[in-house]
Amino acid sequence: MSTWAPPPPLRWWGWGERETPLSDAFLGLLSGEVGLPADPPRRVGLDEVTLLRPHLSAGLRTRLAAVVGEDHVDASKEARVRHAAGRSYIDLLTLRSGRLTAAPDAVVSPASETEIIELLRVCADTSIAVVPFGGGTSVVGGVAPLSGDHRGVISLDLHRLDSISGIDIVSATARLGAGLRGPAVERRLAAHGLALDHIPQSFEYATIGGYAATRSAGQASTGVGRFDELALGLRCVAPAGVVVAAPHPASAAGPELRELLLGSEGTLGVITEVTAQLRRLPARRRYEGFVVPDFAAGVDALRSLGQAGMAPDVCRLSDEEETRISLAASDHGGGTSRALDAYLRARRRRDGCLVIVGAEGDGASVGFRLRRAAEALRDHGGVALGRVAGSAWRHSRFSGPYLRDALLDAGVMVETLETATTWSGLMTLRHRVVDALVGALAGSGTPARVGCHVSHVYPSGASLYVTVMARMAADPAEQWLRAKRAASEAIVAAGATITHHHGVGLDHAPWMGAEVGDTGVAILRAVKQQLDPAGIMNPGKLLAVEQRVRARRA
Amino acid sequence: MSTWAPPPPLRWWGWGERETPLSDAFLGLLSGEVGLPADPPRRVGLDEVTLLRPHLSAGLRTRLAAVVGEDHVDASKEARVRHAAGRSYIDLLTLRSGRLTAAPDAVVSPASETEIIELLRVCADTSIAVVPFGGGTSVVGGVAPLSGDHRGVISLDLHRLDSISGIDIVSATARLGAGLRGPAVERRLAAHGLALDHIPQSFEYATIGGYAATRSAGQASTGVGRFDELALGLRCVAPAGVVVAAPHPASAAGPELRELLLGSEGTLGVITEVTAQLRRLPARRRYEGFVVPDFAAGVDALRSLGQAGMAPDVCRLSDEEETRISLAASDHGGGTSRALDAYLRARRRRDGCLVIVGAEGDGASVGFRLRRAAEALRDHGGVALGRVAGSAWRHSRFSGPYLRDALLDAGVMVETLETATTWSGLMTLRHRVVDALVGALAGSGTPARVGCHVSHVYPSGASLYVTVMARMAADPAEQWLRAKRAASEAIVAAGATITHHHGVGLDHAPWMGAEVGDTGVAILRAVKQQLDPAGIMNPGKLLAVEQRVRARRA
Repeated sequence: MSTWAPPPPLRWWGWGERETPLSDAFLGLLSGEVGLPADPPRRVGLDEVTLLRPHLSAGLRTRLAAVVGEDHVDASKEARVRHAAGRSYIDLLTLRSGRLTAAPDAVVSPASETEIIELLRVCADTSIAVVPFGGGTSVVGGVAPLSGDHRGVISLDLHRLDSISGIDIVSATARLGAGLRGPAVERRLAAHGLALDHIPQSFEYATIGGYAATRSAGQASTGVGRFDELALGLRCVAPAGVVVAAPHPASAAGPELRELLLGSEGTLGVITEVTAQLRRLPARRRYEGFVVPDFAAGVDALRSLGQAGMAPDVCRLSDEEETRISLAASDHGGGTSRALDAYLRARRRRDGCLVIVGAEGDGASVGFRLRRAAEALRDHGGVALGRVAGSAWRHSRFSGPYLRDALLDAGVMVETLETATTWSGLMTLRHRVVDALVGALAGSGTPARVGCHVSHVYPSGASLYVTVMARMAADPAEQWLRAKRAASEAIVAAGATITHHHGVGLDHAPWMGAEVGDTGVAILRAVKQQLDPAGIMNPGKLLAVEQRVRARRA
Repeated sequence: MSTWAPPPPLRWWGWGERETPLSDAFLGLLSGEVGLPADPPRRVGLDEVTLLRPHLSAGLRTRLAAVVGEDHVDASKEARVRHAAGRSYIDLLTLRSGRLTAAPDAVVSPASETEIIELLRVCADTSIAVVPFGGGTSVVGGVAPLSGDHRGVISLDLHRLDSISGIDIVSATARLGAGLRGPAVERRLAAHGLALDHIPQSFEYATIGGYAATRSAGQASTGVGRFDELALGLRCVAPAGVVVAAPHPASAAGPELRELLLGSEGTLGVITEVTAQLRRLPARRRYEGFVVPDFAAGVDALRSLGQAGMAPDVCRLSDEEETRISLAASDHGGGTSRALDAYLRARRRRDGCLVIVGAEGDGASVGFRLRRAAEALRDHGGVALGRVAGSAWRHSRFSGPYLRDALLDAGVMVETLETATTWSGLMTLRHRVVDALVGALAGSGTPARVGCHVSHVYPSGASLYVTVMARMAADPAEQWLRAKRAASEAIVAAGATITHHHGVGLDHAPWMGAEVGDTGVAILRAVKQQLDPAGIMNPGKLLAVEQRVRARRA
């Protein structure tokens, strides 16, 4: 993983610049099963985007520039548009339409914790809301530029906090600046024989600070640990002071304050640095594919591995629908899919479920764990597809959001959501969520395809990652929000968590009361009041949707 | 582990009722190296204990009894003495002297969460402090019956919260009542083929609620996980409401409130129930002993295992001094120690360091992990002692506190403390702490023996557990407090955590500012204010030593 190259910037209206054509097989499936609109909504050019004028007085601009320098206060249209939204389906609809309801008044890019302390002081003084901005990849409205009750809002872009310091080879730890992106982290650590190996689908763009602020989970987190487990320590600049969570291997010195900052989503302060648990650069990385007869068999196999403490680093089990759709999406006529199809048909696994397992580390450990995984899968009727299937998955591990842009171009709604629950509740949860989505979208007159996969395995349960596709309706935002609401209600009713790794942001805030209870909400408000008495930090996120968009000013 | 029998109650003045004579070899070592006083302090009888009269008005007693029933409000001398202290060295000195400076006014034993809610309401109304009491095994003053600014103090004994419910065999979880002790938990779960396997040295007496409130670590926690990792969910009754942390396998729904209650030490509310991660009853449990040439070699071996994700469930490495003292302590003339001695001498490991590794689970996993451990230890000069040494350790795993009573009878001061730091800081930390203790005790005119061991292994570092012995001085409390202060200052100066698993209580509270910083302390106070506005919950613990003992009343 020492060859990670930095990707080009996100496109202002979507994901990265990589052409990802839809395969004929996939287009055929979509056309037949969800329908393709003849006239999909047009995507506008940047010049067509309408924005409110920035609410940035000359006095405020001078004060901000005095802290970070003129060059790092940017109120240009492009900067404001680029910081006006995350990358949820709703965000993409908004950006592509050019009708932005909110944008930051300026994008301010500090270079140090000292500058952030000073900026928060200026903003608290002048009643300006502050939205911390890392990679801008939030899919739950986490970087929506809301001003709350304040006079304006700035986007605090943290890309200049890009240092790696305190590399401790012996302890396998390092201090990582909040603005660092995945590829840069891995490239720079590899030079020291180390790896972070936190690889979410947003890896190319998301940042260390964002991982910490949203409790990110990566594709190998089943084995490597979620980011909240890798973040041994951190620093967070709140308006009321700097919180330093020391990177002890473990401690019993009272409540764990690190866990209060992880997942705080910029509402308490700005996470500036994480001391991360690293690993030796793996000598071996191996990924393999299997097909099991059905989802239930796959769940049982993964459960047995998880409960024996033997789950591979990567553990993914697609259900029948997702398996079928993925095979179509990846069939670019090269014959691989057809050959696979014939192979599976011969073994009566034609309608089965795809499993990807992967392990990284030293040779003996990788070998032992993958043998255990193969045994468990075979015990549950699994058929090995070998390393080709594993490599194919690895090769396309970041392709989802690229593919999404292509689907939106074609007029197809596509969105994901995720949750987690106990093993005993998993099958019911899946049925309820799928039914809720299918039902809500049928109600909108758009038949949907809903596939899902187990993305992370724990001893007590697993996460479930759901992908939905349907033809865009006349009001596509309303179409999705209605389906999302139905899914969220099904999740909460099933006793599952509203989010396993996407975070809360705006989109899940209405369900935080159900998640943590009234007393839990009161605790979070008390902490917020202590750290951010003026309420300038990322208003409206996490707890309250007091105001989805900033009120228009005269 | 299905044969755990409940032990007899703790003796009011010490640990359990099991005779643990000091071996001649050990007495010889003590006599020669620290000196044994001719006339050790006498231990008094219960009838000689002096207590202040309980400050419990008839009206209050009636209100408390209305909630829990007359039988469960106990203001008898024995009940008050039994809830007057934990089991630190200082606690034992106090109990054995009979000069108790504080005792609860009554011991109240609720049977349900509903009763606890009602009791907290009564206590908040009447300004009575509440000290939650599980096993009473705290070694840091966690159950000291301080009233703070209140009119009185009750000990809230949780032993009646002893239900196990919601056993989920598929997910390997169950809801465990806060008052359950280790042996009962294991015995009852074993009937379902499950185990909690949280085995601290206080296992026979400590409770589920205490584990959660203090972030307990067990002897197998390197592999099984610390209790904060096993506690998937919990319920906590605070004066301001009930906090419910749902037992999701993982979640990204904001800050993790469970981690705010774990380690709260009764200062925020009463933990009433924990939903715990269990495991299948291990098919195989295997413990082995090794001797490595020196502490540094053992540290390197354990580090390589921890960083490869291959540390056995139990990983203990004693330094040279602890190894020497343990061998003497366990030499009861049976010849085992002498045979071992000859064996080691032949292999030039006579002055080496003892390592115990143990793994539990299915046969293949146990075998693989112990082979990996043996390889790593041999690579670092280790010599195998086989399973006899492993069994000997297992057999004596709970003996420390029994032995301590015998040492106090003989006039020997013995106490432990523990910390954790990164691998790169471990050797320096050990030297500084040992030097601080030896120096402080030499300053008291009592030469000390200080041994330590690595008790838990993490990828980034390890915990260090230190045992100190010296002849009791004329003022034994002052003698120890001076040494403890020196050790704590050395720990903080080295950047290590003030406690890896004993908790904060009263004894570590002065160092919480150093541990979490001013802003961290402010957060904890804000949460306390929200959940316990009247400040009745376990005053003086965790954050502030406003008052070590209750002021004497007229």
